[in-house]
Amino acid sequence: MNTYKVKFLPHERVVEVAEGDNLIKAAMEAGVHINASCGGEGVCGKCRVVIESGSVEGGLSEKLAKEDIDAGVRLACRSKVVEDLTVRIPVESSMSDKSALDIQRVPRKTARIMQMDFEQLKDQGLFVPPVEKKYLELPPPDAGENVPDVTRLVNVLRLKHDEHRLEFLLPVIRLIPDVIREQDFKVTVTLVRPVREDGGKTQVINIQPGDTTAMNYAIAVDIGTTTVYGELIDLGSGEILAREGDFNAQISFGEDIITRIVHAEKPGGLKKLHDLVTGTINKIIKSVIKQSGVDPENISTITLAGNTTMTQLLLEVNPRHIRRSPYVPASTFYPPIRARDIDLALGEHVTALVYPQISSYVGGDIVAGVMGSGLYRSEELTLFIDIGTNAEIVIGNRDWLVCAACSAGPAFEGGGITFGMRAAKGAIEDFSIDPETLEPMLLTHGNTKPVGICGSGLIIMVAQLFEAGVIDSGGQINKDLDNPRIRHKDNIYEYVVVWKESTGIDRDIVLTEIDIDNLIRAKGAIYSGSQTLLDEVGLGIDQISRIVLSGGFGSYIDLEKAMTIGLLPEIEPEKVTFIGNGSLMGARMSALTNRIRRDVGQVVQKMTNFELSETNSYMDHYMAALFLPHTDINLFPRLRDRMKARRGGAAA
Amino acid sequence: MNTYKVKFLPHERVVEVAEGDNLIKAAMEAGVHINASCGGEGVCGKCRVVIESGSVEGGLSEKLAKEDIDAGVRLACRSKVVEDLTVRIPVESSMSDKSALDIQRVPRKTARIMQMDFEQLKDQGLFVPPVEKKYLELPPPDAGENVPDVTRLVNVLRLKHDEHRLEFLLPVIRLIPDVIREQDFKVTVTLVRPVREDGGKTQVINIQPGDTTAMNYAIAVDIGTTTVYGELIDLGSGEILAREGDFNAQISFGEDIITRIVHAEKPGGLKKLHDLVTGTINKIIKSVIKQSGVDPENISTITLAGNTTMTQLLLEVNPRHIRRSPYVPASTFYPPIRARDIDLALGEHVTALVYPQISSYVGGDIVAGVMGSGLYRSEELTLFIDIGTNAEIVIGNRDWLVCAACSAGPAFEGGGITFGMRAAKGAIEDFSIDPETLEPMLLTHGNTKPVGICGSGLIIMVAQLFEAGVIDSGGQINKDLDNPRIRHKDNIYEYVVVWKESTGIDRDIVLTEIDIDNLIRAKGAIYSGSQTLLDEVGLGIDQISRIVLSGGFGSYIDLEKAMTIGLLPEIEPEKVTFIGNGSLMGARMSALTNRIRRDVGQVVQKMTNFELSETNSYMDHYMAALFLPHTDINLFPRLRDRMKARRGGAAA
Repeated sequence: MNTYKVKFLPHERVVEVAEGDNLIKAAMEAGVHINASCGGEGVCGKCRVVIESGSVEGGLSEKLAKEDIDAGVRLACRSKVVEDLTVRIPVESSMSDKSALDIQRVPRKTARIMQMDFEQLKDQGLFVPPVEKKYLELPPPDAGENVPDVTRLVNVLRLKHDEHRLEFLLPVIRLIPDVIREQDFKVTVTLVRPVREDGGKTQVINIQPGDTTAMNYAIAVDIGTTTVYGELIDLGSGEILAREGDFNAQISFGEDIITRIVHAEKPGGLKKLHDLVTGTINKIIKSVIKQSGVDPENISTITLAGNTTMTQLLLEVNPRHIRRSPYVPASTFYPPIRARDIDLALGEHVTALVYPQISSYVGGDIVAGVMGSGLYRSEELTLFIDIGTNAEIVIGNRDWLVCAACSAGPAFEGGGITFGMRAAKGAIEDFSIDPETLEPMLLTHGNTKPVGICGSGLIIMVAQLFEAGVIDSGGQINKDLDNPRIRHKDNIYEYVVVWKESTGIDRDIVLTEIDIDNLIRAKGAIYSGSQTLLDEVGLGIDQISRIVLSGGFGSYIDLEKAMTIGLLPEIEPEKVTFIGNGSLMGARMSALTNRIRRDVGQVVQKMTNFELSETNSYMDHYMAALFLPHTDINLFPRLRDRMKARRGGAAA
Repeated sequence: MNTYKVKFLPHERVVEVAEGDNLIKAAMEAGVHINASCGGEGVCGKCRVVIESGSVEGGLSEKLAKEDIDAGVRLACRSKVVEDLTVRIPVESSMSDKSALDIQRVPRKTARIMQMDFEQLKDQGLFVPPVEKKYLELPPPDAGENVPDVTRLVNVLRLKHDEHRLEFLLPVIRLIPDVIREQDFKVTVTLVRPVREDGGKTQVINIQPGDTTAMNYAIAVDIGTTTVYGELIDLGSGEILAREGDFNAQISFGEDIITRIVHAEKPGGLKKLHDLVTGTINKIIKSVIKQSGVDPENISTITLAGNTTMTQLLLEVNPRHIRRSPYVPASTFYPPIRARDIDLALGEHVTALVYPQISSYVGGDIVAGVMGSGLYRSEELTLFIDIGTNAEIVIGNRDWLVCAACSAGPAFEGGGITFGMRAAKGAIEDFSIDPETLEPMLLTHGNTKPVGICGSGLIIMVAQLFEAGVIDSGGQINKDLDNPRIRHKDNIYEYVVVWKESTGIDRDIVLTEIDIDNLIRAKGAIYSGSQTLLDEVGLGIDQISRIVLSGGFGSYIDLEKAMTIGLLPEIEPEKVTFIGNGSLMGARMSALTNRIRRDVGQVVQKMTNFELSETNSYMDHYMAALFLPHTDINLFPRLRDRMKARRGGAAA
């Protein structure tokens, strides 16, 4: 990917950005402010900039007069970087000179979602999907050689493809006689590898006429309590051909796991919740098939990861004992299952592989994150944090692993936040504020009019409002500020993020004190969980080599901001890897490499589960963490120093 | 089993019979004749005998006057032997003196169905069912030890029962959380053993509260083209607790395999035939459950054996290529299947084990016979003959095996015989004739009024009528005989076996020339099949150490009579073992010993299939065999000598 230099004037700030990034994104990276409130749709017309050297792609708008255009004026949000540029931010777009200087003090450390390196996977011999296709040319039977059809297949697989210990399931045996005769005894078979090469059988699950080896696909699914995400993956290239996400339809029976379990215990409740989640998954399956245009017959497997309750509800295994002391899940491992047997709308041959669980509150989603991120193969001592309605924390490396779970609430997934939403089209995912005028600069997912705020946007927003002094460390809005964006409505103070004219929903998008409080509780739970688990294993954060951050709340995360609000302990941002939705990544990885299935058994056995609720220090840690960033500011020295400097500057 | 000596007067013939046998049976064995036509129901009142010493159980009847009873007169068919006896047959019961002398020349060599010797099986380490129950006492979970429920089970199975490589299927995982808590963490699990002890996994298919290890049952089923038989077996003792047989409901779509296949190729035909045969099996399942009174929840497995077409129809695998050159079946092996998946009315946990096939016309029924009879483990060179609508022949021992199939028609199962029936209640299964009066002595299955003739009865009847000169070697009835039992009706000659007054059907039971012709064609096909296969492997009948005879046509077979009609080659009767329904025996054995599943793979691979239709000599052998016993009487020297002696006697 090409990168180009963009110099912003009058600040003389230079930033390197990727080809195709727009100038708002570049400004965000550079720490300069441009008023911009329509999310990149180009309709507010506020983000006028002058291109002084080089040229951009796009950037024109009917909001701009011809003479302005001739003078090099463009809308920053519509201007794509395709070469080195010098860009001047005119006074009317910046509004306050102080803003740039102030924001400059907070370096941006955006962590984009780590991409898989297929070449590396191939080099390591890891790119071996559990489901493989083989093209076979069978000798036609004659009077002298009339072995059964299956034997004919087995003979060719053995002699020409070195495939042994084959097992044919009944549904595929039913297909064989007709399919092999359809294209002159030329067929493609789909094989499911055993977990271990030296044991178990290779299952033949499908047979198709002709050569279809170039078309072999998997669907990977993360089943979250709040949201469900799916991807359709090309098992030949590893490429993700389509993505879809949706709210888990079980939400109608409660937002948290406990309410779901209570419902599952009622007559017919388990079946109902199973039907709801499979309904959501089936909608996602339908969508990714449609988006990608693949023939469903060529989808060979579906891999699924979810927390323990979600997994049991998917498999119709009653979760009643999960919520009762001593909190016992039904099983760690589940065998490969025919997708049809759990009501998934896929071909009769499709095998469903479900991630194993550790305990009632550390489930397959976390195991998937640990496996997918490669943490379990790493030498480095790693802190893995999965941010979701239920947050889970893992510490360890390839030698040892401990884990714990805590209830964070759904704030990072958009739950309990007035305009919260998941990271979908129109979600505000990046934000900066002019500390004087309180005018925002924002970017939305898909560059369309804002319709809400997703987790990553929320973190950035609260961090910026906090550093700008709009909210205090208790999460209260500064009532002394005289600004139209700060208002008191229905007895609650709120900050207006976007005026309704610039939104896609014809209402003001606001952030309320209640929203902020919910966010603080969520981040407090996660931070204190990490601290407690570190305490339990006798480690300090400085002994951690790497933080792996997982969460389906945005396509990137501003790490410094996450530390500013006290979600993450303050460490060097370079040590943090953001893997996005770790559960989905793990599901995808298990579709791409059979090694995961081989290794996961050991990982599950190795991982020691701590019950935070039975740890005395957890509640103390939690109470102390219910501030921005924390009761003890000395735990966040970089922030402390910045705030000191700012107070000093204000005093000067 | 106790045996007692019975001496018949005036013949001075002594015979040893089993305790509980009736005196008609004893007379049959002794070769003495007592008129008896009601099958043992005691209603014809003809079989009066005088007990001269010892006493019998039963034998009383309102047909007998008080003074007769006081004088020791009993009805032979109602008299059970419980000690040594001397019995006089009065003139009126015997009628012809010649009869006894004549019949005396034909030694009876009844082969009863070989019974399984469980002690021997145990000694050989073979009595190890593939499905086993284990009683477990689990430690209840507590806060300090809250592993998942399945892990708790696995730990106890591993540590206390040395069970490893366990696999839990989803349906049983669904049961576990509630069942283990039902009786204080005391449970019984049902395990399916892998085919090989050193590979594969042990599947846990069921879990029940408390200790149910004493109740572990299997159902074994033989799926014949004409009839279906089932047994319910106690896997603890090996005992057969209930039996049932019924006509295969597919018969409505044709009596032979080809017609069934033709129907299966029509739209919806395969499903229809599948539904019909599973309907028949389900009726049998229901009946054996009811008869035995076992709780269906304790039935752990169903083992099934059938010919290739029956197996494919059961499993809904289209058999279209079976009837088309080069006659290719879909598969040799079928994996273990959940009984529910093939619509069998059994518990969700029940595993169905289906016997593998050799070729299109040598199917799982024959493999079952070869496995069940132990032929495949024997050193002796054995000729195995399965008598059914499709007859199959196997020659070999533990080192090599060859097989062939031929179409015999359904005569031995009662098909194409005017009063033919399967070996059920009221079937005439033993018979002797007074060669002078042509009065019969007969025994029925269940000692009730005769309603028809089963296969074993038919063999004896035709042999006796032939030796008595009632029918000639071409199967024609001697029209010169002046006897009310020989008559010409509807243009066909027939012998009246039972007058309607003594039957259970209010019609004369007859044997017609057409019936005899059908029997000759059937036995001719089987005999010539055996001869052709012997020719193919370059062996003569004198090199065969043992004949294993299989067929569901009666509970015993009179071997000398089977040789008399030319069904079997003439060898020493001691060399012949009758195993009854070999397919059913094999199904039963595979429920009792997992060794069968281990060995069957090798047996199937070892067995070489010959296509008789492609063997020139088969038709020659067949044409020569369409006589009683054969065109070449010298192939049957014992019969030749008897007939010579008889002609000599007649001449004398």
